[in-house]
Amino acid sequence: MDIAIPLYADMTALDAIGPYETLNRLPGVRIQFVGEEPGVIRTDTGMLGLMVDAALEDVPHPDVIVVPGGIGSRRIAQDDRWLAWAREAHAHSTWTTSVCTGAMLLGAAGALEGRRATTHWSSVHVLASYGAEPVGDERMVEDGKVITAAGVSAGIDMALTLATRLASEDHARAAQLMMEYAPEPPFEGGTPLTTPPSALERLPEMLVPLEVEFAQEQALG
Amino acid sequence: MDIAIPLYADMTALDAIGPYETLNRLPGVRIQFVGEEPGVIRTDTGMLGLMVDAALEDVPHPDVIVVPGGIGSRRIAQDDRWLAWAREAHAHSTWTTSVCTGAMLLGAAGALEGRRATTHWSSVHVLASYGAEPVGDERMVEDGKVITAAGVSAGIDMALTLATRLASEDHARAAQLMMEYAPEPPFEGGTPLTTPPSALERLPEMLVPLEVEFAQEQALG
Repeated sequence: MDIAIPLYADMTALDAIGPYETLNRLPGVRIQFVGEEPGVIRTDTGMLGLMVDAALEDVPHPDVIVVPGGIGSRRIAQDDRWLAWAREAHAHSTWTTSVCTGAMLLGAAGALEGRRATTHWSSVHVLASYGAEPVGDERMVEDGKVITAAGVSAGIDMALTLATRLASEDHARAAQLMMEYAPEPPFEGGTPLTTPPSALERLPEMLVPLEVEFAQEQALG
Repeated sequence: MDIAIPLYADMTALDAIGPYETLNRLPGVRIQFVGEEPGVIRTDTGMLGLMVDAALEDVPHPDVIVVPGGIGSRRIAQDDRWLAWAREAHAHSTWTTSVCTGAMLLGAAGALEGRRATTHWSSVHVLASYGAEPVGDERMVEDGKVITAAGVSAGIDMALTLATRLASEDHARAAQLMMEYAPEPPFEGGTPLTTPPSALERLPEMLVPLEVEFAQEQALG
């Protein structure tokens, strides 16, 4: 069972590492981190480097793809090489999945057309432009062989469900135990509706430069 | 505000990436990934490479340290160079924290002596050998300037609490929203008591080789 997780510049690390950590110990699973070329890419904050082990074309037909998001997804969703890989991989996959704005690559590659799908709360409306039915109030959306997760940390929940499909519910529960995933965030929150206005006001100062640019474009457009 | 996150061979990736993703957008925060030497280390499964950007000695006095766990923590907790770094960093830190078995480095460096502390559920009993009071039923334990988190994913919850100390509750809630951290695991679980026996039986086949060795040693000892 080959799982490919693409890595690219200006992605959000947890989008990839959450599913990786959930799926990596399932029996018979091999996870490969693929990208433009073998070597280190820097994530959206610039503060972390992740290793790409194989070029996209070296892993053309994985059984499962898990596309992480992050502001860099805008670029790859407009890049012919990434689109060609995503189309070919999706045509042969058992499962095609995304976390956060990783859905944009799937959408641009045509994989979301006519399907219900979700992404990071800030970008759900964009999915309609790919012919998808945007879903804004579910943490993961499964439609046929395509599973899309909401933002960043939702990849862990999505991957636990995927683990039941790839192995069994017992294996998924064992993975959950290995990760000690019995979440207890100190606050109710994590969605726009459960976040107080005083916290929403802090968001602009927490964006990385490319995200500021994107937010300004959206406000203008 | 300098935060150092050590990376080392055979660590568990999510232990480091969960707190990184939670803390990285707080105003004025710089996160540095430190280790034995700049370059890529492989995590416990061998399937992922993470980039060390600076040698330990190049970041001797970070304001905050977050030590991730994984089976490789057994080695660094017995390594003079790692112990010297941890002692020096802890002596000058504002906050000294760990995720999962990252607590073993803190313990071996003397930072847990006389303190309540926790770690991955499978290793809580080991903390007593470092003079700590082991806590097995809390997801994170704060004792003075030392915060220890339970296994792997508990680092996210711990880091949200840490974010309130480093910035404010509003900033922590904004970080939670950026990460869309409104967890919905498909099963109740993630602790030994909430995991059914049929799932517990799957655990041995999901260990990486070094963990099998450790489990066998513990059973013999």
